[in-house]
Amino acid sequence: MTRLLLLVFVLSLHADEGMWTFNNFPSEKVRAKYGFSPSKEWLDHVRLASVRLAEGCSASLVSPNGLVLTNHHCAANCIQEVSTAEKDYSAKGYQAKSGSEEIRCPGQEANILDSISNVTDRITAATKGMPDKAANDARKAEIAKLEKECATTDAMRCEVISLYGGGIYDLYRYRRYQDVRLVFAPEFAAAFFGGDPDNFMFPRYDLDMSMLRIYDNGQPLKTPQYFPISRSGPKAGDLTFVSGNPGGTDRQHTVAMLEHERDFVQPHLLYHFSEYRGLLTMFQTRGEEQRRVSQDELFGVENTLKAIKGQEESLLQKNFFEQKRKEEREFQQRIQANPKLRAEYGKVWDDVTEAVKQLHTNYLAYIYFERNWGFRSDSYRQARRLLRMAEEYPKPNEKRLTEYADARKPELSQLMLSTAPISAELEIETLTFSLTKLREVFSVDDPRIKQIFGKQSPREIATAAVNGTQLRDVAVRKSLMEGGKQAVDASKDPMIALARLVDPIARAVRTKYEDEAESALTRAREKLAKARFAAYGSSLYPDATFTLRLSYGQVKGWSENGTPVAPFTIFGGAFERATGRAPYALPQSWLDAQSKLNLQTPFNFVSTNDIIGGNSGSPVLNQDAQVVGLIFDGNIHSLGGNYGFDESVNRAVAVDTTAILEALEKVYGAERVLSELTLK
Amino acid sequence: MTRLLLLVFVLSLHADEGMWTFNNFPSEKVRAKYGFSPSKEWLDHVRLASVRLAEGCSASLVSPNGLVLTNHHCAANCIQEVSTAEKDYSAKGYQAKSGSEEIRCPGQEANILDSISNVTDRITAATKGMPDKAANDARKAEIAKLEKECATTDAMRCEVISLYGGGIYDLYRYRRYQDVRLVFAPEFAAAFFGGDPDNFMFPRYDLDMSMLRIYDNGQPLKTPQYFPISRSGPKAGDLTFVSGNPGGTDRQHTVAMLEHERDFVQPHLLYHFSEYRGLLTMFQTRGEEQRRVSQDELFGVENTLKAIKGQEESLLQKNFFEQKRKEEREFQQRIQANPKLRAEYGKVWDDVTEAVKQLHTNYLAYIYFERNWGFRSDSYRQARRLLRMAEEYPKPNEKRLTEYADARKPELSQLMLSTAPISAELEIETLTFSLTKLREVFSVDDPRIKQIFGKQSPREIATAAVNGTQLRDVAVRKSLMEGGKQAVDASKDPMIALARLVDPIARAVRTKYEDEAESALTRAREKLAKARFAAYGSSLYPDATFTLRLSYGQVKGWSENGTPVAPFTIFGGAFERATGRAPYALPQSWLDAQSKLNLQTPFNFVSTNDIIGGNSGSPVLNQDAQVVGLIFDGNIHSLGGNYGFDESVNRAVAVDTTAILEALEKVYGAERVLSELTLK
Repeated sequence: MTRLLLLVFVLSLHADEGMWTFNNFPSEKVRAKYGFSPSKEWLDHVRLASVRLAEGCSASLVSPNGLVLTNHHCAANCIQEVSTAEKDYSAKGYQAKSGSEEIRCPGQEANILDSISNVTDRITAATKGMPDKAANDARKAEIAKLEKECATTDAMRCEVISLYGGGIYDLYRYRRYQDVRLVFAPEFAAAFFGGDPDNFMFPRYDLDMSMLRIYDNGQPLKTPQYFPISRSGPKAGDLTFVSGNPGGTDRQHTVAMLEHERDFVQPHLLYHFSEYRGLLTMFQTRGEEQRRVSQDELFGVENTLKAIKGQEESLLQKNFFEQKRKEEREFQQRIQANPKLRAEYGKVWDDVTEAVKQLHTNYLAYIYFERNWGFRSDSYRQARRLLRMAEEYPKPNEKRLTEYADARKPELSQLMLSTAPISAELEIETLTFSLTKLREVFSVDDPRIKQIFGKQSPREIATAAVNGTQLRDVAVRKSLMEGGKQAVDASKDPMIALARLVDPIARAVRTKYEDEAESALTRAREKLAKARFAAYGSSLYPDATFTLRLSYGQVKGWSENGTPVAPFTIFGGAFERATGRAPYALPQSWLDAQSKLNLQTPFNFVSTNDIIGGNSGSPVLNQDAQVVGLIFDGNIHSLGGNYGFDESVNRAVAVDTTAILEALEKVYGAERVLSELTLK
Repeated sequence: MTRLLLLVFVLSLHADEGMWTFNNFPSEKVRAKYGFSPSKEWLDHVRLASVRLAEGCSASLVSPNGLVLTNHHCAANCIQEVSTAEKDYSAKGYQAKSGSEEIRCPGQEANILDSISNVTDRITAATKGMPDKAANDARKAEIAKLEKECATTDAMRCEVISLYGGGIYDLYRYRRYQDVRLVFAPEFAAAFFGGDPDNFMFPRYDLDMSMLRIYDNGQPLKTPQYFPISRSGPKAGDLTFVSGNPGGTDRQHTVAMLEHERDFVQPHLLYHFSEYRGLLTMFQTRGEEQRRVSQDELFGVENTLKAIKGQEESLLQKNFFEQKRKEEREFQQRIQANPKLRAEYGKVWDDVTEAVKQLHTNYLAYIYFERNWGFRSDSYRQARRLLRMAEEYPKPNEKRLTEYADARKPELSQLMLSTAPISAELEIETLTFSLTKLREVFSVDDPRIKQIFGKQSPREIATAAVNGTQLRDVAVRKSLMEGGKQAVDASKDPMIALARLVDPIARAVRTKYEDEAESALTRAREKLAKARFAAYGSSLYPDATFTLRLSYGQVKGWSENGTPVAPFTIFGGAFERATGRAPYALPQSWLDAQSKLNLQTPFNFVSTNDIIGGNSGSPVLNQDAQVVGLIFDGNIHSLGGNYGFDESVNRAVAVDTTAILEALEKVYGAERVLSELTLK
């Protein structure tokens, strides 16, 4: 019995655990504990006012004119991309004084979830009776087909989602908006006060917010379904809902999968990113402009590192792991106790273990060659996309690499045509680093490495490719993309040449990975999911999949080694914590406004809502579906939430809407958005 | 039953395992397997011609005039310290054309082991019946006393060594030589051909050698006991001895200790050094001089990282760890089976486990505050030494911090008065990095961090202290050292001020660590050692302790996943592997000499000798006590040797003396040393 199931069954009336799908929300459980039962209308409204930011965040509509509230760190990539050395909106913040000053984000896409439909039968039928490898290919082909049938125009985004590890396949249809513009952002120093040291910590003092606007046909989108902002924020004990897109959890992993994560995947990732972090940190000492262009990359690396470290520490806790073992034994006993179930599912854990062995064998080659860990460079990624578009698009939709299917074309086009600047100086360093790691991991004696490097050093390859490429120029990319295979084949661009050299290797690695590891693992997990339904029924929530989920909980502190942690911080705390030095330097705007601010204003708060990375930017809603807070983090204990939820200490961390309104008014004089937010 | 014991008992006639002390060498076992039994005279001769380099390496005397053969990487610190931007002996190599050109190494000390005497009774008597903490203090006091009694002059170095984890205490008396001079070094590119990628790998092509000379009273030391160099090197299957100073192994660790290493100590170290590596790598891109001054530091970090990664991978192998568990269970069963042993030792594993918990709690504070992980800076370390000398020297010898005891004064003086240059630019970066990690590990809310940082950033503290300090000037240090407490107290040097601020914190952390963790662990391990003697007798070898050991074995390849690896490489292989780019760029001298060289000359070879870090520079001897090789590395499997020896794959890697002589003659025209080496 897995931990989550244990909680579902034993504590079903008490625990706030669960990232629930909107079509299987346990309203009755919420009513039993909190006296409020979300109705179908309530759920539909919340779904339609919730926004997914396709780069990896959540958000919400907060006005009828497409105004979107999300985190600063969810817009940080955009903010850096539309900044220059002279106009650094990350350092100085940004406020559009009129609609015409709202700046389009080069890489942002907003999705609103229109409908969910179950397509399990189609997938099951397509793969029935096939061996693993053939089933894997057939499954992908059927998914490509389903998504294409659904996405009748580029304005629709359709994704088949594997839920419960393959127990159910649902088709999610979104409205897709690629014209998303920056409306308001505070200074990075206010949004990320405390920096990496305070990340995943609480008490906390961050105005981690920004505002975007969705445009359609060049006009602000009409959004009658939106959340009003609460002027008073939440109180301790209040029931809260979080509607957002948790990126992924591994709560249903078997012990063999968890061991693979703990002993192999995570350690490698931690060494790799630790070194990369050191490198980027030192790169920043080259000068102010180098600091600026690498800021978002460094943030991402540090954020990942801290999150993975927290996860790894959970897995290394003996009690935690022993509990996972125990739950697995109980689950196995249920299956073994029933002859029919035993016959059908008795060996599924062995299947998973066998598949994990294949995963282990193929993992590093897959991430370094195919997922570009060996080629950290935006222009390299562009080069490879051009190469693969040229090669894949002429094939039938169902035969292509998944990400080149017809339904995915709009994302690819957006990526190709993004006007985000690329720093050649940074690219040389990141590509040199990653090529060095590639050679280190596979050794100079690996024939693939010999083929890629010849007698050249990593720095020589990187410098020649980065300095020689034209691909930083969007017009060049556009022309190559439109020119198709002929144009790409004819190109002498050195970055394309590098990608051309690597791509057959990467494709071979991918095929091997998919045929040997992914196919067996997917099949085994589907079976495991069915075993779980058979043993425990279906009133469960699936692991997170970066799709819309609803969690419920309440505003509540916790006890840290016996010391109570209060659920709220106040503005005054930020001024007390400030040192005047990054990352504890409040921006000048705050120092100037200090005397005007009500220092007792609630600033950040924690709640028991079950969230994880990807939930950043989610609205915290009260039962009237008003926004009372803005999720931007979890506490340090929440990192173990990747593997299991512990309500006693796991907490979501949010900005209080009272703080947002107070800062918009008194620090930023942001009349324009304020009047839009509070027009009700 | 621990793994090593299993091998001793079951495989006693077969395995080449063991780093044997010279007073307990298993000559009979060697005779049984190889037909040669080292006599007492042979052992004495080998001991007296063996050299320990106190910075952490091994070496040997190879002429009657104090000429010492060791690795390039054992002299690399010295080579960097006597180089300048204009005279870069690391890049260009070095050859003293006459005695007057032999350059004194600022930090090198050579030790020759004069005698070993058992002092277990003295330690036992001093601690008898005491509780752990009092015993810990008494043990240290008795050791200080013993060492002082022994070291009647600064020319003697005396160290009490805890063997078998405290089962035996032996007093090692060395002749100490601090005047060690650089005679010959090839280029770094030849010595470390293949760099970090090839480190711990085989096949290999490195001329990792250098020559030093021991001076006494300004004259080359007379060394009638020395090893002649073999002109023909070894052959496959030859019996080989390695006499050197393996730094440390953990083969007698209990499972609880191994888990602590695997799950806590090593991961933290790997993250920390991975980040530091990235930082140093990028620092090197600032320019040629920055590359030069950080080269040895980066080498050390990469070497440590690769070694620890290899160790961690062994521990993560399920079979390996399961074997450790099994051996422990068998050991426990032997103890439990005998009522007397059970009464005396039955609970010792629980004692260790309890002590490891205390270690866990205290570990990070101890390494960051007391062992200066938070303060990576040579001038900081100098400042703290000055501070502590001033404070400790007035106390009675037995009451001081261990490293300030009278018998240790010569090492401290040498460190204080070293003329090694310190790069301010590098110091600012390393100190900024380490202060940042310090704050990250303990958090800004830790009162100790608040006290050290106030409102300053890590970079502000580092820049002010490094730019403001006078301690890079050896004359300033000398005057402060000689001025004692009064002079140090009066100093306004900002680095001393920083150390003064930190030292009370560091001392408190150390006291807590020693009282809570070290004392209990030392006591428990002493008991465990006695239990082991009781269960298995005393014909065992102790874990390595950076003292002189002798291992035996033979020149022999191994099978890598079914493919045989031949035991020798040849010169020609280096030219084939060369790319012209670091780390695969052969120096010009080699390219120029290529046509003169016999490319069939054996270059590097492997043997089954049981070695570990610290053995670098050890001579490989034949049964006539001639040097046939020079240990410089182990293969990748040898890294697991920290926890257990596996003769099927663990290999020592050495330079063949044939290669040394051929290169000295044909590449370097090193007539002077050649005639000295081959004068017999």
